[in-house]
Amino acid sequence: MTSFRPLTVRGQPLGKSGEAAVCLPLMAPDSSQLDSELQALLALSPDVIEWRVDHFAADTIDSVMVAASRLRREAGATPLIFTLRSEAEGGAKFSLDTRDAVQLMIRAAESRCFEFIDVELSLPSDMAQKIIDTAHRNGVQVIGSSHHFSETPSEENIVATLSSAANIGADVAKIAVMPKVISDVVTLLAATERASRELRIPLITMAMGSLGVVTRVFGGMFGSALTFAAGPQSSAPGQLPIETLREILDAARSRRAD
Amino acid sequence: MTSFRPLTVRGQPLGKSGEAAVCLPLMAPDSSQLDSELQALLALSPDVIEWRVDHFAADTIDSVMVAASRLRREAGATPLIFTLRSEAEGGAKFSLDTRDAVQLMIRAAESRCFEFIDVELSLPSDMAQKIIDTAHRNGVQVIGSSHHFSETPSEENIVATLSSAANIGADVAKIAVMPKVISDVVTLLAATERASRELRIPLITMAMGSLGVVTRVFGGMFGSALTFAAGPQSSAPGQLPIETLREILDAARSRRAD
Repeated sequence: MTSFRPLTVRGQPLGKSGEAAVCLPLMAPDSSQLDSELQALLALSPDVIEWRVDHFAADTIDSVMVAASRLRREAGATPLIFTLRSEAEGGAKFSLDTRDAVQLMIRAAESRCFEFIDVELSLPSDMAQKIIDTAHRNGVQVIGSSHHFSETPSEENIVATLSSAANIGADVAKIAVMPKVISDVVTLLAATERASRELRIPLITMAMGSLGVVTRVFGGMFGSALTFAAGPQSSAPGQLPIETLREILDAARSRRAD
Repeated sequence: MTSFRPLTVRGQPLGKSGEAAVCLPLMAPDSSQLDSELQALLALSPDVIEWRVDHFAADTIDSVMVAASRLRREAGATPLIFTLRSEAEGGAKFSLDTRDAVQLMIRAAESRCFEFIDVELSLPSDMAQKIIDTAHRNGVQVIGSSHHFSETPSEENIVATLSSAANIGADVAKIAVMPKVISDVVTLLAATERASRELRIPLITMAMGSLGVVTRVFGGMFGSALTFAAGPQSSAPGQLPIETLREILDAARSRRAD
């Protein structure tokens, strides 16, 4: 069988047993909309919420940290991911410069407001290491991530990228690829299955866009521990509305007894 | 893109454009239940109905042919597959002996009551060829099939089996495999995608059981032209109820516009 490793928070696995947990993105553009969007997401009972900080208009690091505290309080027991996605990997144009952005990630890790912090593998290694060390000192798990919006790397390459996340000390390895042909989807699934046997940390993998929908629905069977769905907004192409994704998973699960 | 080839009847593709058509099995044990089960299946609007003749208690060849005529009349425009599945490939114990069984298949092909007739690739080649020739003289398409209930052959092997169906003159190539680990499902999907580029006839492929559900839902994207669902009864492990399958496909289709 696949060596499925779930995401865990305080030792407890997230999501249904043996399945990918479901994450919704929080895309609010400013403080005034943060609360209402968070409430809308919580009403959909995701297993995890990813705060896409790159979409948030921040004047200063402090203004983000104020919002972070409020988020933590309002989100209750729902685990949070802090993600400052770079433009190069599909993020929005962020209002603070790169130096402040790294400083912000360190502050986010120190704040203990988040269970996970996303660190792009393409970050200069000294910066990445500083964020990872800070996260670990504060009991925050690191998701080492890589996003390919225009192609699908080879199976070898995908496994190597996931391995490199493990090698720099990430607690979770994530890769998102864009399939151009359906064989790219086979490649992503094969690489996920292989990495789930070769690595010792949970994986998050997906093929984006319409061709990749199968990986967002059934990726858990191949070893992916988290799938991103759309709430009021989606954060990447191919995300299904969370209600639709859950209906499909419930329907498929009802047949697993064969 | 995948070279998706739909099943066709009188030049018209079956099912929704670019997707696998949906087939329901007709498993009635005798004449008295044939009509009511057929009506129950027709009410579910399958694209195709497969008559599993091995489940039908036949006294004589003639008694089957009488039932065949009635089926054809009652099924209206719904295409029918005549399938006498052998015990060795997952069929029920059939009431006629092997000689009569082959004779029955020839009579079925001659009757023109069926759009398709299933011919197992494991049949002795002279018998298979006689059925295929008869089918083609009568405008009936042949599904050359192979079933593996205890394992999943290698990708190479699956492609070779599908090719052998094309080589003996089948109009459609079918293989069903049993996955033991999720990498077997990757193998089936990879082989399907490859065969869809290498062969010139429609394919029907599936991984059975709970691990294979993904192939029954999304197999069409990888090149499989037909998926088997369960009506009142299922004919193999892992088939989803047709209503569930359609809900899932409708939900996934609504996202294809990305």
